Amino acid sequence: MAEHPHDERLARWLATTYAASVARHPERRASFATSSGIEPAPCYAPGPTTAGFAERVGVPGEPPFTRGVQPSMYRGRLWTMRQYAGFATARESNARYRALLAEGTTGLSVAFDLPTQIGYDPDHPLARGEVGRVGVSIATLDDMLALLDGLPLDRISISMTINSTAIVLLALLVAVARRQGVDPARLRGTVQNDMFKEFIARGTQRLPVRPSLRLVTDVIEHATRHLPHFNPVSISGYHIREAGSTAVEEVAFTLADGLGYVDAALERGLAIDEFAPRLSFFFNAHNHLFEEVAKFRAARRLWATLVRERYAPTDPRSLMLRFHTQTGGSTLQARQVDVNVVRVTVQALAAVLGGTQSLHTNGKDEALALPSEAAAVLALRTQQVLAHESGVADVVDPLGGAPYVEALTDEVERRARALIERIDALGGTLAAVEAGFPQRAIEKSAYEAQKRIEEGRDLVVGLNCHVGGAEPEPELFALDPAVEQEAVERVRAARAARDEAAAQAALAGLRRAIDGPGNLFPAVLEAVERRVTLGEVFTCFEARYGTFQSPRQ
Amino acid sequence: MAEHPHDERLARWLATTYAASVARHPERRASFATSSGIEPAPCYAPGPTTAGFAERVGVPGEPPFTRGVQPSMYRGRLWTMRQYAGFATARESNARYRALLAEGTTGLSVAFDLPTQIGYDPDHPLARGEVGRVGVSIATLDDMLALLDGLPLDRISISMTINSTAIVLLALLVAVARRQGVDPARLRGTVQNDMFKEFIARGTQRLPVRPSLRLVTDVIEHATRHLPHFNPVSISGYHIREAGSTAVEEVAFTLADGLGYVDAALERGLAIDEFAPRLSFFFNAHNHLFEEVAKFRAARRLWATLVRERYAPTDPRSLMLRFHTQTGGSTLQARQVDVNVVRVTVQALAAVLGGTQSLHTNGKDEALALPSEAAAVLALRTQQVLAHESGVADVVDPLGGAPYVEALTDEVERRARALIERIDALGGTLAAVEAGFPQRAIEKSAYEAQKRIEEGRDLVVGLNCHVGGAEPEPELFALDPAVEQEAVERVRAARAARDEAAAQAALAGLRRAIDGPGNLFPAVLEAVERRVTLGEVFTCFEARYGTFQSPRQ
Repeated sequence: MAEHPHDERLARWLATTYAASVARHPERRASFATSSGIEPAPCYAPGPTTAGFAERVGVPGEPPFTRGVQPSMYRGRLWTMRQYAGFATARESNARYRALLAEGTTGLSVAFDLPTQIGYDPDHPLARGEVGRVGVSIATLDDMLALLDGLPLDRISISMTINSTAIVLLALLVAVARRQGVDPARLRGTVQNDMFKEFIARGTQRLPVRPSLRLVTDVIEHATRHLPHFNPVSISGYHIREAGSTAVEEVAFTLADGLGYVDAALERGLAIDEFAPRLSFFFNAHNHLFEEVAKFRAARRLWATLVRERYAPTDPRSLMLRFHTQTGGSTLQARQVDVNVVRVTVQALAAVLGGTQSLHTNGKDEALALPSEAAAVLALRTQQVLAHESGVADVVDPLGGAPYVEALTDEVERRARALIERIDALGGTLAAVEAGFPQRAIEKSAYEAQKRIEEGRDLVVGLNCHVGGAEPEPELFALDPAVEQEAVERVRAARAARDEAAAQAALAGLRRAIDGPGNLFPAVLEAVERRVTLGEVFTCFEARYGTFQSPRQ
Repeated sequence: MAEHPHDERLARWLATTYAASVARHPERRASFATSSGIEPAPCYAPGPTTAGFAERVGVPGEPPFTRGVQPSMYRGRLWTMRQYAGFATARESNARYRALLAEGTTGLSVAFDLPTQIGYDPDHPLARGEVGRVGVSIATLDDMLALLDGLPLDRISISMTINSTAIVLLALLVAVARRQGVDPARLRGTVQNDMFKEFIARGTQRLPVRPSLRLVTDVIEHATRHLPHFNPVSISGYHIREAGSTAVEEVAFTLADGLGYVDAALERGLAIDEFAPRLSFFFNAHNHLFEEVAKFRAARRLWATLVRERYAPTDPRSLMLRFHTQTGGSTLQARQVDVNVVRVTVQALAAVLGGTQSLHTNGKDEALALPSEAAAVLALRTQQVLAHESGVADVVDPLGGAPYVEALTDEVERRARALIERIDALGGTLAAVEAGFPQRAIEKSAYEAQKRIEEGRDLVVGLNCHVGGAEPEPELFALDPAVEQEAVERVRAARAARDEAAAQAALAGLRRAIDGPGNLFPAVLEAVERRVTLGEVFTCFEARYGTFQSPRQ
């Protein structure tokens, strides 16, 4: 940050006392730059940054929402403690959800295995070895009924981390709600449904970019019309950051993805104020406490500014960036796993000070495997200590007006906006993603971060410094090899037991819908209700659209 | 805080938007008051608080030192990571210190067992069952030689948590330095030597108040003249807070104790600028992140203000409050011990954001026993993650100028000052302690805090909320019963092996000195060098001064 925001006395002090002191005792590092390359001043004081505060920063609950999306924030209600979990079988996951609800978690977050994420049934050859590994395996309505058995769908909110196959999983959720006698219009929760970041950073895409965007938009359109309390997309910086981006890139590429979805929804004929209030975001929380807090605040203000400038909505809720946060999985170390509790605490604190709406705290052993039950409970307890014992939830935007934090907020926003303008110059998000622009930027940042660690310019405890110490063997989650065989038998039994004529009729209807211009959701819902499997739905899509081929293959 | 420091826009917002919002959705708690009863405003913004910032808050490294005692703070050098540890025998403690130095700790902190703290040799009947329990047992010069064997006394700093018997332990340290060929004038470290807080809160006093103060002052005077790099007193709020005081009382009673020592040293004929720069402080760090940060900043400014007003020193270092911090032992819970890692992280963060000079982070199992080695390493790693991964050490006083933090700083200072003025009205610290004023105030605060927890107004995870969860059995430190017998044999062997005539002559010299007006340090040093034991020295003191009788017995 070239201009140091501070008062005259501090400016004088920096030029004299501080300079003299550093001449005698050099600073500990040659640079204190953040992940985004922002070099902080040695010290901050109220000055130009805090002048004009009311105009630039505003008040909580009002645009540009720098200080938070609600007036009373956590003084009114704590953030949702939403622990992401999915385990092998629907039945096992169901038991874990019931346990988490009993322990005080207030929202469920479902992790799916890779075959489910990509659209292969457990008996598909490409699913082999992956069934139930990183989350639950769901192929049929029977699986979804078992997953949600006995959970009060009208009283809890459910987040589903699913993208390529989001339209199918959302249809399955609606089908379960109907069978539970719950009006789908009362469903609360989120489906991730963010395909841009799959192409940019995560990689579970199965179809090419444009048909992927069609499915995303179908979900947004359907939810806008029929699921008024459901967030139809969770625009995710999480995986962008995990892939090695900087904090600034996390903001820029996430908001650019959001603008891409807005453009697609507008093209579909929706009005901005119909759907923008239900767009939701998902960010990472890394260790740099102040940069992270600034990142969340900058993201809120920048989104409000961009949406106002580009779409001129009339509903202020269309300007509101609401987000879920997960602590940074890639920051966790496989050595000295207990030290990860410290990292998760700092990251969770950043999310809370940054005004997150919901939070997943990672288990300390997640660098090695899915979290053990003890690690998952400890992760939840981390949030509860912050909520009840630390006092940080008792004042709205407690760091608001802090000269250092406001300066960082300004700088993160300025740099993210510049990146978004480069994407605009490339023709917008869709074109930039197809051209691989965000992908290359993230690769470069990841390489530079790795180099800083290898050269010892950045220190990571247990990795390139302080590597010693007693280390008890962690108890890790282990996948039972019987899980896959059972899933294979279950999906085959479901296909055998269904009314085959009805299933084939639904599939035929789906094929016709794909060839038509309309929304695919009703046809997908009809299919899953007729016990058509996830894999069968995706075989239809693939037959029509082909498979995504990476430009770099 | 009656006056809310914020700008006009926020004031209007509070009266309209916020009030309306809370009318619709009530706040989560009836009160968000801190431990000190400070009720924060719902939100803060730059305004009256940040106006006049330069005058009231100042710059780092200059009086009143609100923003820290050095200009570059942790950009220059990180705080000293000083882990308090003492284990049963001198030999075992020595091994742990060597291990801690190898793991990156940068200062040692010695814990003594209760008999050593009170002045009983291991073979005294009152020592039974306590020898080596909460720290190392030291009775003779041979014990001290074993404790410090091979440690480079000219290159490390050593903190000794010892009060009633501080004069003896400091004499032993000087004697060891001489035998290592290290000039005592080069010794760096701290001896706690704070008797007021023993009477107020901790309870290892053996002699009455006034002779206790004589010994404290003897140490201050001797160190001032002969140990220029040693802190001869660590004025301790830690135990005041552990006993149940509020954050405001911790500041008030600690600074009042400091003023009491200054008065005693001035009476001894020392000049303020001779000794005040080497007074050091020791605070607790509890969970309320912002109140704790404010507490440290308020303590620095208030001490500088009080010393300037009362003693008008010319050396600015006489106004400088330097402090060690330990995370709050009493905040740790015996259930779900892993959750304590979260608390310790938040507390350590508060200490760092508050500008501490050194820090001890508690082991997660310290609510149950002395920390196991794995817990001690994890506690140190907590500091290292904050230092190297969180970025919080990269800007000087990073929360300085934050409207909420500055408002809390002002309020803690105002309330602490009012309490000190009540002590002045009682005739000063010595009189107030003899009258039991701080003692009663702390009892009242402790009772009220307990009541808030029992009534569920304050929530503590694992105690009165979220009590469930998987809990692996922690591996606890266990005291070997042979330790006591060996210590008994060692002190008896030392007495048998010494030059008895020389020892008795030294004891006679000590008795004469006690009856005289001069400083007792030289006579104590002569005695311990002649292998007189700690218990024998204290028997002399007790014979002359009698034993402290609690006024409430």
